[in-house]
Amino acid sequence: VFRAIDHVGIAVHDLEAALKEYEQRFGMHVTHIEVNDDQGVVEAMLTVGDGDGPPLQLLAPLREDSPLTKFLGKRGEGVQQIAYTVDNIEIATAQLRERGVEVLYDEPRTGTAGSRVNFIHPKNAGGVLVELVEQASDDGTTRRQP
Amino acid sequence: VFRAIDHVGIAVHDLEAALKEYEQRFGMHVTHIEVNDDQGVVEAMLTVGDGDGPPLQLLAPLREDSPLTKFLGKRGEGVQQIAYTVDNIEIATAQLRERGVEVLYDEPRTGTAGSRVNFIHPKNAGGVLVELVEQASDDGTTRRQP
Ligand SMILES: [Co+2]
Ligand SMILES: [Co+2]
Repeated sequence: VFRAIDHVGIAVHDLEAALKEYEQRFGMHVTHIEVNDDQGVVEAMLTVGDGDGPPLQLLAPLREDSPLTKFLGKRGEGVQQIAYTVDNIEIATAQLRERGVEVLYDEPRTGTAGSRVNFIHPKNAGGVLVELVEQASDDGTTRRQP
Repeated sequence: VFRAIDHVGIAVHDLEAALKEYEQRFGMHVTHIEVNDDQGVVEAMLTVGDGDGPPLQLLAPLREDSPLTKFLGKRGEGVQQIAYTVDNIEIATAQLRERGVEVLYDEPRTGTAGSRVNFIHPKNAGGVLVELVEQASDDGTTRRQP
């Protein structure tokens, strides 16, 4: 079902402060910052090393009713999600549902950089919020459903 | 400092049950199981997709006094660590300490498959337990300090 780890998402209270720490202490570099209104978060992608492997994603809440605000209130800062790359999100979602895994949204949502995403609830994935990511095609467009 | 994400570690109560779930639901494959007496855990490495990217590590406690027992009691199952590959663990540790990051052990410990590891406390890394991993050389031997 999964091709590889797409990114690892870390919840932080203050994106600016966290980025400074990750850059200065760990030598990581920001490649992308984006507001996702649908999820109520601002998110930054951070390259690790030479960038051949998966990046980190730092996520900070934009509003009180963001699911991330709830996460931070309950667990504090820390790893909030593991995202996996899938080739086709409809096929992956169907395969997972066949195996009894609850996938959160009926239709994929829009993720970072035009990707199409969906989520598996932590109760269905050993306590881990799992994000499924179908990357946008190389020209930046999102594959549309027929 | 960090070359790439080495693996993502997930704390579970029951390794057997978790492995079955990850294999059946997500199609992942176990490549390595090992007991680490020093850390009081049994750990399994799981390949994601074609295995070009970093694996998952599932960790279950072996005893009541394992730090992982404490983690599971407090947070429940979920992501427990992000591990990063470093070329030389003494150099990486020294660089991090220069930048004010507290590294847990004075001397590296033995990690999975003969690797040499150390840890950064979550309070020094935005709520995330960070593991530093210097992989054993290809012939399986561990580099010894002079
Ligand atoms: Co994400
Ligand atoms: Co580890």
